[in-house]
Amino acid sequence: MRKVIFGGANSLDNFIARPDGTVDWLLSSKDVQEIMKETWKTIDTIVMGRKTYEIAERMGAGGGHSGIKTYVFSRTITKPNTKKVIFVNDDAAAFVRRLKHETEGQDICVMGGGVLAKSLFEADLIDEIGFNIHPVLLGSGIPLFHEMSRQIDLKLKECRQLSKGCVYLTYKVKHA
Amino acid sequence: MRKVIFGGANSLDNFIARPDGTVDWLLSSKDVQEIMKETWKTIDTIVMGRKTYEIAERMGAGGGHSGIKTYVFSRTITKPNTKKVIFVNDDAAAFVRRLKHETEGQDICVMGGGVLAKSLFEADLIDEIGFNIHPVLLGSGIPLFHEMSRQIDLKLKECRQLSKGCVYLTYKVKHA
Repeated sequence: MRKVIFGGANSLDNFIARPDGTVDWLLSSKDVQEIMKETWKTIDTIVMGRKTYEIAERMGAGGGHSGIKTYVFSRTITKPNTKKVIFVNDDAAAFVRRLKHETEGQDICVMGGGVLAKSLFEADLIDEIGFNIHPVLLGSGIPLFHEMSRQIDLKLKECRQLSKGCVYLTYKVKHA
Repeated sequence: MRKVIFGGANSLDNFIARPDGTVDWLLSSKDVQEIMKETWKTIDTIVMGRKTYEIAERMGAGGGHSGIKTYVFSRTITKPNTKKVIFVNDDAAAFVRRLKHETEGQDICVMGGGVLAKSLFEADLIDEIGFNIHPVLLGSGIPLFHEMSRQIDLKLKECRQLSKGCVYLTYKVKHA
């Protein structure tokens, strides 16, 4: 079965971007690049919501990534699919459940803010999460986590101090 | 000058209690007890808001702690002061600024949810923060951080893995 992973970089107050989607506060370092390189090796599919797609598009990454299939969930986008980016006008949880259980492939990465992640957490589809917690309180922005209808128990997998004051935490989700 | 510290235990999605104030999800361990013991040695003053006070009262800690002076900020509580608990009908930031700069003593601990901490962060009065991040997404509850009018930059001081999957992070606040 393919694993569904959710993660990224966040501020200590759990924002993944400023209110306008900018991430100028992100700190890069060799260890972060190494983690990202290792993560890219394990995934061949990205799922994201419309808002994240629009931010990716503004940042010039709307065309997708080579070797990766990106599914964008939206009821409103009417753009044609490409080889790398497929628009899905369907229930995200049902779609990801099918991807996870009925298709072959590498891991599936949930990208972006918490709206999509919330529905996937609630449907108990996320297997692992990993965050690079940055040493900043942004004060406002796009939240990593939204309110959820139930508690998700986690098991700490890794706690690693990175350079520049970042902390990398990974957890396995204890399935309901 | 006395340091103002803010901290406690939180869920990975940054709640400090369930919506009703309960903290049944907190994990205790020897290392947590050791950290709390060391922290209590460095403080002689606690400041908190009305909501935190009401939760402390319900938990039987409304009478304060021996050797500690507790200031409760409220415009509405009409209870008489005691030796240990003093009700302050005044601007919290101005009061804490005076405590910090014009009085002698040990460190001052900000307790509870983010409403009071928000105003103290915005007034640049908090010097250090420390959190015991628990391996759980509560989904809803009393938030640790509220939206703030400005960004607060931090410097990681300590990153320590505790038992039971908890992670203890402490930061110094970079003053504006």
